[in-house]
Amino acid sequence: MQPRAIQFWFDFSSPYSYIASEWIEALAARHGRTVQWKAILLGATFQAAELKSPVSHPIKREYSLHDFERSARFAGVPLKNPEKFPIPTQNAARVFWWLNDKRDATGSHWARHCLRAYFARGVDLSDTGQLKVLAAEFGLDPHEAEAVWNDPAWKLRLKSENEAAIAAGVFGAPFFMIDNEPFWGNDRRPQIERWLERGPF
Amino acid sequence: MQPRAIQFWFDFSSPYSYIASEWIEALAARHGRTVQWKAILLGATFQAAELKSPVSHPIKREYSLHDFERSARFAGVPLKNPEKFPIPTQNAARVFWWLNDKRDATGSHWARHCLRAYFARGVDLSDTGQLKVLAAEFGLDPHEAEAVWNDPAWKLRLKSENEAAIAAGVFGAPFFMIDNEPFWGNDRRPQIERWLERGPF
Repeated sequence: MQPRAIQFWFDFSSPYSYIASEWIEALAARHGRTVQWKAILLGATFQAAELKSPVSHPIKREYSLHDFERSARFAGVPLKNPEKFPIPTQNAARVFWWLNDKRDATGSHWARHCLRAYFARGVDLSDTGQLKVLAAEFGLDPHEAEAVWNDPAWKLRLKSENEAAIAAGVFGAPFFMIDNEPFWGNDRRPQIERWLERGPF
Repeated sequence: MQPRAIQFWFDFSSPYSYIASEWIEALAARHGRTVQWKAILLGATFQAAELKSPVSHPIKREYSLHDFERSARFAGVPLKNPEKFPIPTQNAARVFWWLNDKRDATGSHWARHCLRAYFARGVDLSDTGQLKVLAAEFGLDPHEAEAVWNDPAWKLRLKSENEAAIAAGVFGAPFFMIDNEPFWGNDRRPQIERWLERGPF
């Protein structure tokens, strides 16, 4: 019997996605599951669900910035709120889908490379110069990466993934689908663990 | 040394507040803490933070209704989504503050009585007839309870608690303040447990 994949939607500018990206693979592996990584743009899902970033709301903003770093410490993940936040991340996401489609599993490695760079080291993924440096660090030809994010075909690939996510009920990130059961948020980890251990509850 | 109280803000129409209301007292007691219950109206905090109920958002609505019941099962708390939801809860909240101020600890007992009635039995707290029945079940004179919720003094008491909550950084419910550290949501329970066990992290 094939292990059923866990679908994992994330945005490169989402701190809770970053935290979840650091534990989902190990958790899945412990339960004989694989992870299907899916880069999306929260801008698209927020618009569909009539939502905004938590840091765009008065009062909630201050709590959220504090909670990002505290939740990371709680999970044992290094995170320092980036100076520029949130940022547009379509370029990193298009490279993700290119790697995903062309080079098998390297998409998720690129995702972890970029998420760590942004949230642990403050590398601005929306700056094409910095993103090219990241691409080179990752072993890509930076000019090839740049050609990908400027290519209408990969723009369309990301757009269609945003639309598919919304159609699947995704309104935020991280968002998980396990055996058709939806879980939203890094803080659903205890419920996800229970589901993987003992099945539906 | 006096145990420092845990401040616990809740709304009578908040399912996650109901779930938290079922575990906060036992958790606090295990750590030598008391709980200071504070009824508020999410309508007021949502307005201040420019937020809406999760069920007022497309896509998020369906997930949230599913998650309310699943999160209750996960916590071992009986919950069935009420037919009428959300509801205005100012009357139950004014009686809470009256009991809190006049009869010491019975405010929290009233809160648990009403939250269970609404979320486990579907009693509509916004219906004054049903609320009077609940008051009688609780051992109150229903006419006295009705006089309280119509009394400008108790209307003002609730209003000032809403304002104090907003000033303290509360934008949703349940909301906890422990040693001046804010925690929002039933799903912050693991972090609250760690804080109570081992202090700041």
